[in-house]
Order: sequence, then structure tokens, then C-alpha cells
Amino acid sequence: MAATGANAENPENHNDCPVRLLNPNIAKMKEDVLYHFNLTTSKHNFPALFGDVKFVCVGGSPSRMKAFIRDLRHLMRKATGKSKGGRERCGLEPGTVVITEQAVDTCFKAEFEQIVLGKRVIRKTDLNKKLVQELLLCSAELSEFTTVVGNTMCTLDFYEGQGRLDGALCSYTEKDKQAYLEAAYAAGVRNIEMESSVFAAMCSACGLQAAVVCVTLLNRLEGDQISSPRNVLSEYQQRPQRLVSYFIKKKLSKA
Amino acid sequence: MAATGANAENPENHNDCPVRLLNPNIAKMKEDVLYHFNLTTSKHNFPALFGDVKFVCVGGSPSRMKAFIRDLRHLMRKATGKSKGGRERCGLEPGTVVITEQAVDTCFKAEFEQIVLGKRVIRKTDLNKKLVQELLLCSAELSEFTTVVGNTMCTLDFYEGQGRLDGALCSYTEKDKQAYLEAAYAAGVRNIEMESSVFAAMCSACGLQAAVVCVTLLNRLEGDQISSPRNVLSEYQQRPQRLVSYFIKKKLSKA
Repeated sequence: MAATGANAENPENHNDCPVRLLNPNIAKMKEDVLYHFNLTTSKHNFPALFGDVKFVCVGGSPSRMKAFIRDLRHLMRKATGKSKGGRERCGLEPGTVVITEQAVDTCFKAEFEQIVLGKRVIRKTDLNKKLVQELLLCSAELSEFTTVVGNTMCTLDFYEGQGRLDGALCSYTEKDKQAYLEAAYAAGVRNIEMESSVFAAMCSACGLQAAVVCVTLLNRLEGDQISSPRNVLSEYQQRPQRLVSYFIKKKLSKA
Repeated sequence: MAATGANAENPENHNDCPVRLLNPNIAKMKEDVLYHFNLTTSKHNFPALFGDVKFVCVGGSPSRMKAFIRDLRHLMRKATGKSKGGRERCGLEPGTVVITEQAVDTCFKAEFEQIVLGKRVIRKTDLNKKLVQELLLCSAELSEFTTVVGNTMCTLDFYEGQGRLDGALCSYTEKDKQAYLEAAYAAGVRNIEMESSVFAAMCSACGLQAAVVCVTLLNRLEGDQISSPRNVLSEYQQRPQRLVSYFIKKKLSKA
């Protein structure tokens, strides 16, 4: 979930853009094509379409995002996006909402490694500290579920990267797995997922205020399979959305 | 595209499985849950459902796979899967089909780096040489489009990893980009995509005979945007599917 303060003070002033554009080529290009969104400046008026956007929410599943947009519709004049929900927990009761303090890699460092033209580049995965505190306060006001602030470990895959024993490949023991997950917990990791690092690194680089809100679905120190009934999981997955909706409503009511 | 020879000689003999199972835990588990497929041995009879599968085709888009399955239905008794089509080319006419000789990383090495319990593990990305030659022969027999054998570069992202100048972030010049793509071409790279390495590494580790077939959509030495008309791109994207369909038909007619 990324909550940006874009143009919050003056929605009409598109030049006062808080996004740091880190590509000098864009200004020289005839058109700016957002390939994955099927949008281009030659066909779409970006300031008219998106100039008043205050919040952008991104998440893992189209159906989850559809439900989120439906719920938010009465709150917002305009919203783009999807909503964010991580899967794993590393200690904690299932259903606990985790507001990410730091998105960490599999060595528990707050770094995102990217390859640019064949060379390794390390980017910081800083998230906005003020947003963390605001979201935590929102959760206390909502008072519907337990919420903690902790680190989110971002892995490259669902099985070996997260220490699962039940994938097609497994070269380590149950003991190795437990030791790894306990080391993660000791390093402040409270949940595991696969998107937070690149999200945090990109937002941080572009100067966007960003937050990550997840919900834990199982205790990985006890197993690898998500065994809760579908309706329970469904309710868990709505929790980050409810918290973010409440946050957005509160922000808009103060604007 | 993965073409496996699983049980080709004797479809009834499920013990004669050519897949190398690299996880000793599976045999001790009460059930084997394939989480992402929503399948489990406690509810589904895997040998009855999949025991006669000879080919598995995987690819990037559900709609492309739907079209592929529709076209193949009359050819096969049972098929699971999707079909594979990469996007970029690095010299070559757009629309050229590339059969992958080696899936290489962004340093042009035939390796896939994975993180297992926080440690880097390097896996080989060998593809089946016999399949490459068989597919090339099929293309000559089909005689519908140009097909080459070359290396496929697998990147972690669409923009900086592939040397694009038009992303949100860009810290290199047009000259740097050209030098990198030319070095890739000199190393035998004929197209760029984002899935082949993990696919090749996993299949190779499990002893599955695998091939990757892509089609090139633009010349990256000339630009970053895919500008061909939609109907032209659509026809290009069917080419790997037509080649793989022809290959499967030929194999089945000989079985």
C-alpha cells in the first residue's frame, strides 16, 4: 500500500509534483508510454486524469483489489490501484496485521538488490516512519484486530526462499528451517512476502511516501501450509484493506 | 515451453516416473499440496489425473494460453498448461522465433541465482539440446516464419534490467544501453525475457526435458517501445504456439 501526499495541498497545481523523476530521458521524449498500464501521453491527458490522485494502493490479487475499490468508492473521488496483503507470519497469531517498519531481504538487511545493465545495484528500502505511526494509530481507533509494527522479509520465491519443506526442491532440514525462521524473528521479521522490497525501493527512490500493510495467515514456525478455512482467510485478507480505507477516510476528512 | 517425455513409453506405469524428486520430505508427508494449483493428494488422485500427461506447456498470459489450449484440443487427449513467448529481440527481424540454446543471466552466464535460507545458490540453466534440434526441424517443415537458435537473456525487470531508457528510473545513457545490448548480442543473446532461467533451472534440476520458444517483438537496438500494430503482434505471438503445436502433433503421431 502506497499512500502519497501528491498535490494534497493544491490539487490544481500539477507543477508542484512531489514525485522525484529519476530519468532525464523522459523530458526529451515525444511521448511517455506506461506500457503495463496501456497509457501514453500522446493519447491520454495525465494531469487531467491523475492530477488529483492523493493515494495509490497496490496489491497482489485483482479480485482483492476489486473488492477494495468497491468498498472505497463512496470515500474517494478518484482511486487507482490494488491492495497489499502478505501471507506468512514468523511468530504472532494468524490474522495479525503487520505494518512494515523495514522491508528486509533474506539476510534481514533493509536493501533491495537490482541488476542494472548487468551490474548489481543496492537500493534502500526505507518506508515512511510517519505513515507507520499514523496507520498504527488508525488501527487503535478501529480496534477491530491486533496490529503490530515489524519488519517484513521479502523473498524471491514461495518455497526455498521462505524455508518451506514441501516444495519440489528442498536441500535443508526441518532444523535448518527452524533456525532460519528463528533468526528472522530475532532480526525483527514479523511476516514474509514477495513484493515489499521492490515497492519500498522504487517509492523511496522517487520520493513517494509509502507504507506496506500485510496480514499474517499462518505461523511458519508451526508449518508450511495455510490450513485456515476459506471464510476465515477471506476475513483476514480484508483487514489490511479496512485499515487502509480507514486511514484514507480520515485523511480526506481532514483535507 | 516444457516438453516432457514423461511415461511416453508406458502411460500406465506410474512408477517409471522420469521426474527427479529433489525433496525427501514429500515421501514422509501425509499429503502433498500444490498450493498454487489448488491441488492436493488428499483430494485429488494425481496418477489418475495426470499420469498420462506427455507434454506440459507454460506461458506468460492466461488469454494466450486459452487460445493455445483451444487450438491443441483436437490434437491431444489431455493437456495442462500455458505457452511461452518472450518479448524482446537483440538484432534480427521482429517476428523471428527464437528457440533457446541457453537461458543466460544479465552477465550472459547460463546460471540462475536463487536465495535458499538466505544463502546464494547457483543453478545451471541447461535446456535439452535434442529438443532444440527437433523444434528447429519442425520449424523448417512448417516453413511459415524465420526461426533461429540462440541464447535468451532472462532479466529481473522490464526497464533497468533490460537497458530501457523510458522507465521511471534511468541512470545510464543511450550509449551505455547500446554497448550493453551489443555485448549481449556478441554473447549469443537473441532475445530478452523474464522467466526462462528459473524455468530452465527447475526443469533441469528435476530431470525434465525442457525447451523455451519465444518470438521477438521489436529490435531493442532501435528502440524501447513495441510499436507494431496489434494484429501484427497478435500474429507474432501465435508463432511459438504454432511451432510447439506442430511439434506435439508430430510426436503424438509417432507414439
